[in-house]
Amino acid sequence: MKTDIEIAQGVALKPITDIIAPLGIDFDDIELYGKYKAKLTAEKIQSLENHPNGKLILVTAINPTPAGEGKSTITIGLADALSKIGKKTMIALREPSLGPVMGIKGGAAGGGHAQVLPMEDINLHFTGDMHAITTAHNALSALIDNHLHQGNELGIDPRRIIWKRVVDLNDRALRHVTIGLGGPLNGIPREDGFDITVASEIMAILCLATDLTNLKERLANIVIGYRYARSPVYVRDLKVEGALTLILKDAIKPNLVQTIYGTPAFVHGGPFANIAHGCNSVLATKTALRLADYTVTEAGFGADLGAEKFLDIKTPNLPKCPDAIVIVATIRALKMNGGVAKDALGQENVQAVQSGFANLARHVENMRKYGIPVVVAINEFVTDTDSEIIALKECCAGIQVPVALASVWANGAEGGVELAETVVATIEEKPANYKRLYQDQQSIEEKISVIAREIYGASKVVFEKKAKSQMAQIIQNGWDTLPICMAKTQYSFSDDPSLLGAPTGFEMTIRELVPKLGAGFIVALTGDVMTMPGLPKAPAALNMDVDADGNAVGLF
Amino acid sequence: MKTDIEIAQGVALKPITDIIAPLGIDFDDIELYGKYKAKLTAEKIQSLENHPNGKLILVTAINPTPAGEGKSTITIGLADALSKIGKKTMIALREPSLGPVMGIKGGAAGGGHAQVLPMEDINLHFTGDMHAITTAHNALSALIDNHLHQGNELGIDPRRIIWKRVVDLNDRALRHVTIGLGGPLNGIPREDGFDITVASEIMAILCLATDLTNLKERLANIVIGYRYARSPVYVRDLKVEGALTLILKDAIKPNLVQTIYGTPAFVHGGPFANIAHGCNSVLATKTALRLADYTVTEAGFGADLGAEKFLDIKTPNLPKCPDAIVIVATIRALKMNGGVAKDALGQENVQAVQSGFANLARHVENMRKYGIPVVVAINEFVTDTDSEIIALKECCAGIQVPVALASVWANGAEGGVELAETVVATIEEKPANYKRLYQDQQSIEEKISVIAREIYGASKVVFEKKAKSQMAQIIQNGWDTLPICMAKTQYSFSDDPSLLGAPTGFEMTIRELVPKLGAGFIVALTGDVMTMPGLPKAPAALNMDVDADGNAVGLF
Repeated sequence: MKTDIEIAQGVALKPITDIIAPLGIDFDDIELYGKYKAKLTAEKIQSLENHPNGKLILVTAINPTPAGEGKSTITIGLADALSKIGKKTMIALREPSLGPVMGIKGGAAGGGHAQVLPMEDINLHFTGDMHAITTAHNALSALIDNHLHQGNELGIDPRRIIWKRVVDLNDRALRHVTIGLGGPLNGIPREDGFDITVASEIMAILCLATDLTNLKERLANIVIGYRYARSPVYVRDLKVEGALTLILKDAIKPNLVQTIYGTPAFVHGGPFANIAHGCNSVLATKTALRLADYTVTEAGFGADLGAEKFLDIKTPNLPKCPDAIVIVATIRALKMNGGVAKDALGQENVQAVQSGFANLARHVENMRKYGIPVVVAINEFVTDTDSEIIALKECCAGIQVPVALASVWANGAEGGVELAETVVATIEEKPANYKRLYQDQQSIEEKISVIAREIYGASKVVFEKKAKSQMAQIIQNGWDTLPICMAKTQYSFSDDPSLLGAPTGFEMTIRELVPKLGAGFIVALTGDVMTMPGLPKAPAALNMDVDADGNAVGLF
Repeated sequence: MKTDIEIAQGVALKPITDIIAPLGIDFDDIELYGKYKAKLTAEKIQSLENHPNGKLILVTAINPTPAGEGKSTITIGLADALSKIGKKTMIALREPSLGPVMGIKGGAAGGGHAQVLPMEDINLHFTGDMHAITTAHNALSALIDNHLHQGNELGIDPRRIIWKRVVDLNDRALRHVTIGLGGPLNGIPREDGFDITVASEIMAILCLATDLTNLKERLANIVIGYRYARSPVYVRDLKVEGALTLILKDAIKPNLVQTIYGTPAFVHGGPFANIAHGCNSVLATKTALRLADYTVTEAGFGADLGAEKFLDIKTPNLPKCPDAIVIVATIRALKMNGGVAKDALGQENVQAVQSGFANLARHVENMRKYGIPVVVAINEFVTDTDSEIIALKECCAGIQVPVALASVWANGAEGGVELAETVVATIEEKPANYKRLYQDQQSIEEKISVIAREIYGASKVVFEKKAKSQMAQIIQNGWDTLPICMAKTQYSFSDDPSLLGAPTGFEMTIRELVPKLGAGFIVALTGDVMTMPGLPKAPAALNMDVDADGNAVGLF
C-alpha cells in the first residue's frame, strides 16, 4: 500500500495559477511561493467585500480517540466530491505545526487520496506563517525583557509576566526555564517558559483579525503581564504593536494550494483547539465564501471543543454562519467510546458501536442547539463490517440525522459523492437558523456554566481559588464581556480524559482564567492543558530524509 | 533627504523573471517568492557545473568604526557601475539577520541609491532561510534533550553539551538559561543558552555546503557535546542528519533579487564574521561566477576578519580565487583611526587622515600576501574635504595601490564608474596569483600564530589553560588539520577593541578552541565574543510600523 507521501508525490500538480483562474483570481492578485503555493493579496480580498456569500460547511468530529477519525481527510474529500458533482467549491483548512510533524504525527495535510498538496511544503515551512508568528511572539518577549533591563519604566513585575516564549517544535525541556542568568549584563533573572507556536496568542489573533488595521489593534491589546501595583501592561504600553504587525504583514495573507483533484484550498492559520479557538483564519474562510459556492472548513478536535469555539468565537467574526455541520465518526472510534480496547478494534462488535453512539448522539444534539442542520459522515475503514454499519445507520435514524459513508482516503473524490449529495440536500432542505449558545453580556460564571452544562453535560462547575481571584481581576479590568475559550481535554466531554461515551453528572473544575485581550477571549483552564508537547522515544524525525534530488523521504 | 526605505519604495521594480532572463535563467529554473524574489533550483545550478568562471571581486574594508564604512553599499554600487560600463555583472551578498534589524541597524541591504530590493522583505523574513536554520538548529536541540530524557542511550554528559539553542533576535535574557525545570516530566535540568541564529554552526554549514549531499554530510559531522567518557557525540550518532537536511532543503537554494539599477543579485546566507567565516554561500558565489562575467561579493567586518576567512576558509571551496580585492575606507573612519573623536569628524583634519592611513595600509599589505591585486575605494561623505582626499590619495600612491572615489550612496551607478573602471583595469593588468596564508597540515598553534603575526601584527600568541586542554582534545580526536576561524573583536587588528590604527608588538590571548566539525573549522576565541546581542534602550522596533495598505514604515 502506498504511503501518503508516495501518493502525493505521484500526483502531477497543476500550477496554482491554473487552479485559481476559475475563481477569478489573476496572477496580479497573488504572490507565488514556488509554482504551487501562493498568497492572496489584501487588495483582492478587499475587492470581494461586497460579493455574495456561498454556502459554508463546517466539518467536526466525535471526541478523538487513538483509533483516529480522519477529520481533515473527510474535509478535503468532501470538497473534492462537491467539485466532482459540479459545485464550485473551496476548502479552508488550518496549517500544520512543524513540532508534531517531527514528533509523532508525521504530517497534517489530509491522507490517502484526500490530501492538500504539496504536502511536504505544507508540513514543513510552507509560506513561513508559523515562523513569522514565532518571530513576532519572541520579538515581543525580547522587548519585554529589554524593558526590564533598561530601567523598567513601566514598573512591570517580573514575577507577573504572563507572556512566555515560543518555538514551533515539541521541546519539553523548554516548558519551565529560568532566564536572564549570568550577571548584570545579561538581563533580569526570572522564571519563564516556552509554548509551542500554535499556542501563541498571536496565532489566535492572526486567525481572528479581519485586516491589517484590526491585526494591529488586537496586537496592541495583548496583556503581557502586570505592574507591581497589579494593573495590566498592554503591548500598546510598550509601543511595539507597529513592529509586530510589520513582522506579520505577509503571514496575514491567506495561502492557496490544491488538493490531489485540483480543488482550490486555503490553508491558513492553525491555533491550538484546546488553549485557543482551533480554526483556520477568518480572512481565509470569509474570502472562500466569496470566491466559491461551497466552502468546506474544519474545526479542531471534537465538536465539544472545536465546533463550539467555531460557533461561539469565530462565527461572530464571519459574514455568515455555517449552513451545515458534518460530524465525522468512525466505527472504530465509536467502538472505543463503547469500551473496546485499541487492540480489539479489528473484531466485529455491533453492541460496542451502539453503545459508543452515545458520544456521537451528544455531539449531534449539541450542534442542533445552534440551529444548524447536522449530517453524520462515517469515515470507512477496511475492518468495518456490514452489521456494524447497519447498526450505526439505525442509530442515526433514531435521532433523525442524515448519515453517509465516505471512503475518500481510499477512493478520493468518488468516495465522497454520497456524503456530498447528502450535505447538499440537507442544505437545500433545511436553512440554518443560527443562534449563539451564550451572550457576551452574561457573567463569566454564567458563560462557562452554559458551555459546561449544554455542551459537556456537566452537572456543576467549580472554580478553584486561583480562578476566583483571577475572575475578580478580570471583572475589575472590565474584560468580563469577552467570550470564553475553554481549555479542556479533547478526549472526553468532561475534564477527565478517561470518561468516554457521553458522561453526565460530573463536576467541571476551572483552575485558571487567562485573559487573551488581543484574541478577544478569556481562556478557562480545566485540568492540565499541555501547551508544549514532548517528543516520543523514537521521534518521526529519525525516519525523515531528503534524497540527492531534493525529494522529501519518510515524511509520513 | 530621503531615507533608504523611501528611496527603495520609489523604485519601480521589474519582475525578477525579467532581471534574470539575460543570465539565461528561465521561469522553470526558479521558484518565485512573490514577483521580486526567487530561489534558483538545484538542477539549474548543476547544469552550470562546467561553465567557465567569470572574474571575482571581493569587497572588504578597514576595521569598522562607529563612523560607518558602507561596505555593502560599495559592493552594490560597484556592481551597478560595472553593469553601467557594459559588463555582465552579478552580486553575491549575505542576507541580514532580523535581530539587529529590530535593534540598532534597522536594515542591511545597502543604502541610499545602492540597495538590493525589495529591502523590506530582505530585512524581514525574505525567503525564510533564517527561519529554516533556526528551526533545524532548535530541532536538533530538542532531539538532544529528548535523548537525555528518554534514557540517554548514548551516555551524553548533560554538563558537556556544546550545542546551544538559537533565536533570530537580539535577546540578552536568553544568553544564560537553565532548562528542563519543573519535575521529571519536563526533561533533564541543565544549563543552556541561546545564540543569535547567524552564529549557528548550521548557518556556517549552509554557506560552505556544495550541494544537498554535502550539506547532509556536514550536518552529520556536527559535534553536539561529549559523553561522560569524554568521547565526542556527533549528529550522526543521533541519526537525525536526514531530518535536519529535510528542514534545510529549500534554504540551501540561493535567492535572487535585484538592485535599484536592475543588477541581478544573489543574497544568500549570512554567518557572523566573528564566530564564523562571515561570507555569503559558496553555492551563490560559485553560481554567480558561472552566470556573469563579473561577480562582486563581500566579506564581513574588516579585512583582518572577513577577508582572511574568505581567502583561507571559503576560497578553497570555490572554483577560483578572487581576481581583485577592493578595500573600502572613508575619510571619517580613517580620521577615527587617526585618533579623532566621533563628534569631531566633521572638521577637516588632514593629519588624522595621514595617521589613520596606517590601518588601511596594513590591510592592503595583508591582502597582497595572498597574491591578489588590491584597489582602495573611498566611500565619499559630504564632510570630506579636498585636502583630505588629496592626502589620502598621496598615501595610497606611496604604497602603489590604485584608489578611486565612489559616491554610489548619493549618485548610484554613476557614482561608482571611476571605481569600476579602476577595478577592471587592475584585473586586466595584474593576474592574481593566489596562495593561502597557511596549510591545513600545520599544527593548530602554527596556524593561529601565522594569522596573528601576518595579519594582525601580534608579536606573540598566548594560549590559556582551557585552550591548551581543548587543543589536546582536538589533536586526540584527529581534528587538528582543520582551518582556523578566528573569533576576535572587529574594531582592532588586536584583541583589544580600543587599539585603533595599526598596532604592533601586542600579545594575542587564545581563550578557547571550539571544534565546528560540520562547518569544517576550529574556532579560536580571543577575548569575549558576543554570540547573542542585546537590544538598546530605544530599539529600532519602536519606530517600525506598517500602513493599512501593507507598506513597511520606519524600517530605516
